[in-house]
Amino acid sequence: MLSKNQIKFITSLKLKKFREEHNLFIAEGTKIVCELLTSSIHVKQVYATSEFFRNNKIDNTIERFEIKENELVRISTLHTPNQVLAVCEIPNYNLEIETLKNKLTLVLDNIQDPGNLGTIIRIADWFAIENIICSNTTADIYNPKVVQSTMGSIARIKIHYQDLESLFQSTIINNQLPIFGALLQGENIYKTQLPKNAIIIIGNESKGISENIIPFITNKISIPTFSQLKTNTGEAESLNAAIATSIICSEFRRTIINKK
Amino acid sequence: MLSKNQIKFITSLKLKKFREEHNLFIAEGTKIVCELLTSSIHVKQVYATSEFFRNNKIDNTIERFEIKENELVRISTLHTPNQVLAVCEIPNYNLEIETLKNKLTLVLDNIQDPGNLGTIIRIADWFAIENIICSNTTADIYNPKVVQSTMGSIARIKIHYQDLESLFQSTIINNQLPIFGALLQGENIYKTQLPKNAIIIIGNESKGISENIIPFITNKISIPTFSQLKTNTGEAESLNAAIATSIICSEFRRTIINKK
Repeated sequence: MLSKNQIKFITSLKLKKFREEHNLFIAEGTKIVCELLTSSIHVKQVYATSEFFRNNKIDNTIERFEIKENELVRISTLHTPNQVLAVCEIPNYNLEIETLKNKLTLVLDNIQDPGNLGTIIRIADWFAIENIICSNTTADIYNPKVVQSTMGSIARIKIHYQDLESLFQSTIINNQLPIFGALLQGENIYKTQLPKNAIIIIGNESKGISENIIPFITNKISIPTFSQLKTNTGEAESLNAAIATSIICSEFRRTIINKK
Repeated sequence: MLSKNQIKFITSLKLKKFREEHNLFIAEGTKIVCELLTSSIHVKQVYATSEFFRNNKIDNTIERFEIKENELVRISTLHTPNQVLAVCEIPNYNLEIETLKNKLTLVLDNIQDPGNLGTIIRIADWFAIENIICSNTTADIYNPKVVQSTMGSIARIKIHYQDLESLFQSTIINNQLPIFGALLQGENIYKTQLPKNAIIIIGNESKGISENIIPFITNKISIPTFSQLKTNTGEAESLNAAIATSIICSEFRRTIINKK
């Protein structure tokens, strides 16, 4: 049975303040927890129903708590809890700027919506992007909503928070990597020669890329609208940040495939 | 001031049953309502603050109700209501199957998540897709969550609900239009020659395209993963339905641009 203190402790992790204090976050559901259990992220505690423990082998180093469905409901952040909740350590990835020269990397400048952030992490996973660098103003990826919407991709992507201006001032990035940013007035991405290794900046949902970051962009790109093909009037004025990310990543990766 | 009956009537439209009974839906916020006011959709009533009426001209044929912020809160479906709520007629678009021969059309097979559905409508708008045909099992696009997440695109896309099997059995579609479906085992979309006019089927978030629909697909495609580029183990196993839609639409439309 769960004690009052356990319930209080777990539910406190819904708040960033307590996640930072304990360096812990929560993840839920069989799919995500199983992916975390086989990842480099350290799972500290598993609270789960007997069904979960019957079907999944848990390492002895992890604290296990068998609980009832109604207890899971009390600690869960989901409308319909799914067998298991895990308490995990927030990983502290070392950002090796030197290695970025040989990679495609996403930089998120002030992404605010947890759903968008989770979806972007999932897109990065699909397109084999290893690192995501978030501005300090970007939403917290260890927010339960973000963790859940990554569908397990959070276990495979290294996410770093840091001041973007200092990042872009570092000589390696400044001299050796093209920095792409999607802007309203950029080169048509479908007609742009895209390199294998680069940095792609994704801006805030409504404000776009911050003014102090724009000067660092070496390649301004844009996703064109196709309103010339339409018979009706009116024009879509924007794409959701996650959708824009998927189209840009798809274009970068397509180039590699088509060259083969 | 709003009467109890007005409040009851407006809030009843949050439910599909009452939307169907009255053939009405609600839309909120200055951006979406202004787009609807200039669209072919008939706005019947506008409930708004004095600020909204000061800044926007409303046609005389529309019933206007100036209300206070706290009254707006009572009828709104949003956490932070934004000046205006409109009651609109559900349009009854005529699906002219003959015209689909010359268009790119999306078919949604049992899309369930309102957020995904709204995002897909916005993607269709961006990529100049005029018609979306939804299976009868797809979520209701006049659900307030869907309406809000289209960001106004709902005013420009013709959405039809119908039985997909009968649609695909119609001779015109069967003989004259390629039907693309994204499946796990399809041709790599980046290496596929894509036509200008086609039907693209998007399947359910977890189950994919229904078994009874698969035989109608003439061109099986898939979005490849790029895990061969990764240094870590583990592999993203799926893309969100809206993300897959955006990548597929981008590929279809890119082909047109690059031919120019």
